[in-house]
Amino acid sequence: MTGSGPGSPLGLHRVLEPAGVLPQAAWRLDASPGLWPDEVRVRVERLNLDAASFRQLREATGGAAPAMRAEVGRIVAERGKMQNPVTGSGGMLTGLVEEAGPGSPLGLAPGDRVATLVSLSLTPLVITGGLAGWDGRSEQVPCRGHAILFGRSIATVLPADLPGPLALAVLDVCGAPALTERVVRQAAGRAGGRPPVVAVLGAAGKSGSLSAVAARRAGAGRVIGVVPSEAEAATLRAAGLTDEVVIAVRGAGGPAAVTVVCVDVPGCEGGAVLATADGGTVIFFSMATSFTAAALGAEGAAADVTMLIGNGYVPGHARLALDLVRCEPGVRGLFEARVSESARDGKVEA
Amino acid sequence: MTGSGPGSPLGLHRVLEPAGVLPQAAWRLDASPGLWPDEVRVRVERLNLDAASFRQLREATGGAAPAMRAEVGRIVAERGKMQNPVTGSGGMLTGLVEEAGPGSPLGLAPGDRVATLVSLSLTPLVITGGLAGWDGRSEQVPCRGHAILFGRSIATVLPADLPGPLALAVLDVCGAPALTERVVRQAAGRAGGRPPVVAVLGAAGKSGSLSAVAARRAGAGRVIGVVPSEAEAATLRAAGLTDEVVIAVRGAGGPAAVTVVCVDVPGCEGGAVLATADGGTVIFFSMATSFTAAALGAEGAAADVTMLIGNGYVPGHARLALDLVRCEPGVRGLFEARVSESARDGKVEA
Repeated sequence: MTGSGPGSPLGLHRVLEPAGVLPQAAWRLDASPGLWPDEVRVRVERLNLDAASFRQLREATGGAAPAMRAEVGRIVAERGKMQNPVTGSGGMLTGLVEEAGPGSPLGLAPGDRVATLVSLSLTPLVITGGLAGWDGRSEQVPCRGHAILFGRSIATVLPADLPGPLALAVLDVCGAPALTERVVRQAAGRAGGRPPVVAVLGAAGKSGSLSAVAARRAGAGRVIGVVPSEAEAATLRAAGLTDEVVIAVRGAGGPAAVTVVCVDVPGCEGGAVLATADGGTVIFFSMATSFTAAALGAEGAAADVTMLIGNGYVPGHARLALDLVRCEPGVRGLFEARVSESARDGKVEA
Repeated sequence: MTGSGPGSPLGLHRVLEPAGVLPQAAWRLDASPGLWPDEVRVRVERLNLDAASFRQLREATGGAAPAMRAEVGRIVAERGKMQNPVTGSGGMLTGLVEEAGPGSPLGLAPGDRVATLVSLSLTPLVITGGLAGWDGRSEQVPCRGHAILFGRSIATVLPADLPGPLALAVLDVCGAPALTERVVRQAAGRAGGRPPVVAVLGAAGKSGSLSAVAARRAGAGRVIGVVPSEAEAATLRAAGLTDEVVIAVRGAGGPAAVTVVCVDVPGCEGGAVLATADGGTVIFFSMATSFTAAALGAEGAAADVTMLIGNGYVPGHARLALDLVRCEPGVRGLFEARVSESARDGKVEA
């Protein structure tokens, strides 16, 4: 099906069914290797399944390697992409650029080692070799096959100065610090000279720690890290990323002008709204956020707060996140500990 | 349980189980009539169930009056509030103020006829008389009993110059035009003199028509109304609320700087993002919005758009919406048609 005309930058020409929807909403994509002029083909080395999808697969199959391999293989063969039909989510992948169409705007060349920054849920994918290298115990799946990038499928060349698993873990959450940076900078500009208080829920995690240092660099007056346990509080204090580490925000110098939700558990909407001052902003990055709970919760408290759906894409997000890890030893330490834990336990945390 | 000390303005003192959560998240509230000092008791005249809850009740019970009455009665008796356990949503109510505590900040006096602007899902409620006046066919439920308003439970005195059902229909969606007003005004200030293009998905509906005229008054250069059918297009053209009426936004002078989603069906997230220019803003008012679909959809299209969760509360929202209906004959006509349709068909539309 190699195209002769230009492809759709969104990949509409790869949608097989139902007709007319976007690749992410599609049930099935055409993942054949021939390229349209603005596409790029990647030789896949590794899939990084998203946490929700991995958990569902493990529960549905029991978690044994043969069953996990068979289930992922079945989904990809059936749908032409690795989108978990239950959770709707995907993940990301890494690999080597094999061929770049003459009209591709991505700036990639054969041989580049890249990570995709768009979801697997919309990326055409073919798996070969039956995932033989995967033990089923980690979200990081060694994989052979190919994937297709569209004109607007953002990918980034993996940095040479950071270990691969560390870079992957950073790129996986790079939208959070970029949007936090932007919102805190705007708040700092508006506040009439008073640097804004910023609260980060889940500040000891990956997206949370990056968001905390991004907030400070963007002009936050006081960064409050909110964590669920004494163990995480100790970790966060040792890393020195926030001015204050607490369970409750208002006693620690809040309410906040900007509240960043990085905790991947349901039910944080009301607390985040109440932690925020009138006229302030809440940014929800957690995929466990309920739209209804946030909308009705703010209304119910008559809270005049702006609530943002965390967009995973902000121009320059990958570079900003990687730079934060390079320059902030506290963040790097947290990330390295999480990455090595994951390798040891055979899992990856949010 | 009449309180002697001050109550929590959020109503935490009325939560029976589970302990420590907000009234909206609670399974059961204390709806006893004795007032804490900052509370107000309302003699209920009418419940206005939200559309999602009403639909669920009708499907679950078959829709016959005795079954509908029994089910709503059972929920309220069990939970101390009318929060549909399946949809999680509530609605609003109207009634007469019976008693206002000496510390109430709401400015209400006995005899005032009010509508609550916070959800029934967090309002303590007792029903008496078995809903005998309800035929089960309308979301507007004639009702006897009492409800409790907390210090932060926004309520508004019903205007004398508008028919009750019309005023109720306007107040039900008054958060949408208020937030649209604010966002469009900000966009108009930023654009460097070029009035922003605004797209309203579902512009022939109640929240959509109000949002369209609010956008124009806030400085929109061009308002594009997007509707799903020729019938709605004809209605919207006749009302004259928008500059353009279309199915697809880009051909009509878009992409938009601000896109307002007022369509209450799932699956609009990707289309709304694509209708919006880079650097623009999408406001999601539809309760059918999926947080995940919006977040991943924008990321998948590498779309640098700000996505707002429509907060039902904006200071001054009730007055702004009522004023729009008073001043804009086109909006008033649409509302009156919808209200009389509802009365005739025994249902209320979003």
